[in-house]
Amino acid sequence: MANGMTVAEKIFSSKCGRTIRAGDVVMAGIDAAMIHDITGPLAITQFWEMGGERVFDPQKIILLFDHQIPADSIPAAKNHVMMRAFAEEQGITNYDLREGVCHQVAVEKGRVAPGDIVVGSDSHTCMYGAVGAFATGIGSTDMGFALKYGALYFRVPETIRVDAVGTFGRRVGPKDLVLRMAGDIGADGATYRALEFGGSAFSSMHMAGRMTVSNMAIEMGGKAGIVPPDAVTMEYLKDRGSFDPVDIAPDSDATYLEKRGYDVTTLSPQVAIPHNVDNVAPVEEVAGRKVDQVFIGSCTNGRFEDMKEAAEVLGDDTFSEKLRVIIIPASRDEYLKTLRAGLIERFVEAGALVEAPCCGPCMGGAFGLLAPGEVSLSTSNRNFRGRQGSTEAEVYLCSPATAAASALYGEITDPREV
Amino acid sequence: MANGMTVAEKIFSSKCGRTIRAGDVVMAGIDAAMIHDITGPLAITQFWEMGGERVFDPQKIILLFDHQIPADSIPAAKNHVMMRAFAEEQGITNYDLREGVCHQVAVEKGRVAPGDIVVGSDSHTCMYGAVGAFATGIGSTDMGFALKYGALYFRVPETIRVDAVGTFGRRVGPKDLVLRMAGDIGADGATYRALEFGGSAFSSMHMAGRMTVSNMAIEMGGKAGIVPPDAVTMEYLKDRGSFDPVDIAPDSDATYLEKRGYDVTTLSPQVAIPHNVDNVAPVEEVAGRKVDQVFIGSCTNGRFEDMKEAAEVLGDDTFSEKLRVIIIPASRDEYLKTLRAGLIERFVEAGALVEAPCCGPCMGGAFGLLAPGEVSLSTSNRNFRGRQGSTEAEVYLCSPATAAASALYGEITDPREV
Repeated sequence: MANGMTVAEKIFSSKCGRTIRAGDVVMAGIDAAMIHDITGPLAITQFWEMGGERVFDPQKIILLFDHQIPADSIPAAKNHVMMRAFAEEQGITNYDLREGVCHQVAVEKGRVAPGDIVVGSDSHTCMYGAVGAFATGIGSTDMGFALKYGALYFRVPETIRVDAVGTFGRRVGPKDLVLRMAGDIGADGATYRALEFGGSAFSSMHMAGRMTVSNMAIEMGGKAGIVPPDAVTMEYLKDRGSFDPVDIAPDSDATYLEKRGYDVTTLSPQVAIPHNVDNVAPVEEVAGRKVDQVFIGSCTNGRFEDMKEAAEVLGDDTFSEKLRVIIIPASRDEYLKTLRAGLIERFVEAGALVEAPCCGPCMGGAFGLLAPGEVSLSTSNRNFRGRQGSTEAEVYLCSPATAAASALYGEITDPREV
Repeated sequence: MANGMTVAEKIFSSKCGRTIRAGDVVMAGIDAAMIHDITGPLAITQFWEMGGERVFDPQKIILLFDHQIPADSIPAAKNHVMMRAFAEEQGITNYDLREGVCHQVAVEKGRVAPGDIVVGSDSHTCMYGAVGAFATGIGSTDMGFALKYGALYFRVPETIRVDAVGTFGRRVGPKDLVLRMAGDIGADGATYRALEFGGSAFSSMHMAGRMTVSNMAIEMGGKAGIVPPDAVTMEYLKDRGSFDPVDIAPDSDATYLEKRGYDVTTLSPQVAIPHNVDNVAPVEEVAGRKVDQVFIGSCTNGRFEDMKEAAEVLGDDTFSEKLRVIIIPASRDEYLKTLRAGLIERFVEAGALVEAPCCGPCMGGAFGLLAPGEVSLSTSNRNFRGRQGSTEAEVYLCSPATAAASALYGEITDPREV
């Protein structure tokens, strides 16, 4: 294999068995394909329209419901029935609505391995980059094809390398880093690029934090956001399946379109201001703004580590009665970890609503919708106008620590001051 | 005071300061008025249209959100905003969406006392009869008037007395009794009557069970369903407020429209069959019918005792993967009791979705809706066609024990056989 390669180039080269460079268009096999209750029915319909009878490999399809569970409308209920029948007919494991948010479940159940090429009919599929996969969101037509043929054309992307060094300060973490990146790179600054993350701040970052960062690659337009696998990755994966070791570490002389560097030591908590994810400011600049609803959860920040971060800020206090606090662990496993650590009890005592694992208010579909004029502070990944209800509402994005601090006072609050 | 009076006559006589008999039409003062997020906005609009400026007594108004929480649509979010503003302007305590289902919260927060006359803009307001109140559901126009004047015209109802004796068999309980009553009396058999409950099976029944029975008085058409207060009532209420002792025990020679008797010793678990609550059969007759969704919760059966009943049937087992299991304690207090007893952990381990306190799938509004052809088994109180989603779906009603047993097998199951 040639030198000078990025992790994305290495993954495609490894899969195709020849040297693949950024800019090449290749037909590559798919190691996993994920569909959920919103986009799944569209993909399945495409599969049928292409004459699909049997999926390429039922073991490689991840199917579950998370956006509208338990069914929030009769059409949603019908979608679930349709997907259940498809799963049964095709012999696909159906996690149904028991396990949680698609991306979290895909990773925690060991359905994604380092070096894999994975597609999902959801834009935040890029999260699986946290375990060293090239994972990307695709549309329903592409997914119909992928379900049938197990392969897809890809234009291998150029890579933007982001190195982060230093040590996060108290109550500052991976979400603040990725929000800052989004602010710097811009919502379309990495369009059709891969983001590759490295540096000592990533080496020492837990998997939950890596998932937060990879998850938001798409918020910069990225096709993928990859943390090259290391010992932390393999430790996370060790009880989740058997994974062959792969050498996909980027070469030291890899060709990057652009390189960026951060020292997280000096980073403040960051907040994305309505109505764009790249409209990012340090929390100091927006502190004091009144908040009506706080949401801690989602594929971006719904893991135990996020819950712990929020609980540490909460302490023995109670949330302000001026606002609603909605907390949703991203999966059944993360829920049970959170519960067994006593944190669900603490959150409910403090006045939060803790819901069963699902996407929740993130995309403003099933519940947690905002009225005109209301303000949401959310640990999720998007704050576009109308994202969580009324187009006259506002959504701010932040870390679990900032969300919890703000929930104590009913206004955006610097978690370092709590 | 005259002899020969029912508990309903005694309550009205006590409130009016003169002898009141069934059939009398009286203007009586209201001790509490409850409004929630579905009917509250209608009642408040009526209040305004009547020229209402200040409510009669903010301390006597119970306001909260439970049907559509967290807001499941932009109109619901607007309703919440409107009610929050009304509560703040009027100085009404707003339990908002933090505390749970209206009826459970009203009782557990000590807002209803024995001998009270209480109205609520929800049909299951009759539940407060479990603490010896005359409590009844009213429409929005009446509620607008009640909010303004603190009084309402009532036609004092005739009473049907139901005595139950004996001891419930294993995994048979109050829900089975009230379903059997509904089957016998019929969905309109007590229309504009009060139901009065007594006998040794009630004396030894915990408050949770009494609430289940009183809750369903309206399912027989009853205006009220009253368990005369006793030591069990006062024990339940003792830390919830200061309540003056009232003598509202029915006279031994009270005049009843009808008397009915049950011996619960021989009672089987009962199931209400689609699409009427009075289409009731012993579980044996419907065992084996496939179920797609089980719901354990609601104002009817969402208390700790109900959760414990379900957990005892579950044991160390797991729920069938063939169906969805949704479990929702009726209030924050009941949730925390359930959690601290380890039952939420157990339910989630077993595959259930445990949601934050709210009405949930009971009325098929916010979530847990059924697709055409699907079957729900529910511990709630109504199974009318379309109640939980599609008009082509079916809803069966049962006890928490029967629900849990059925959730183990994916079909209606006699809990005595588990």
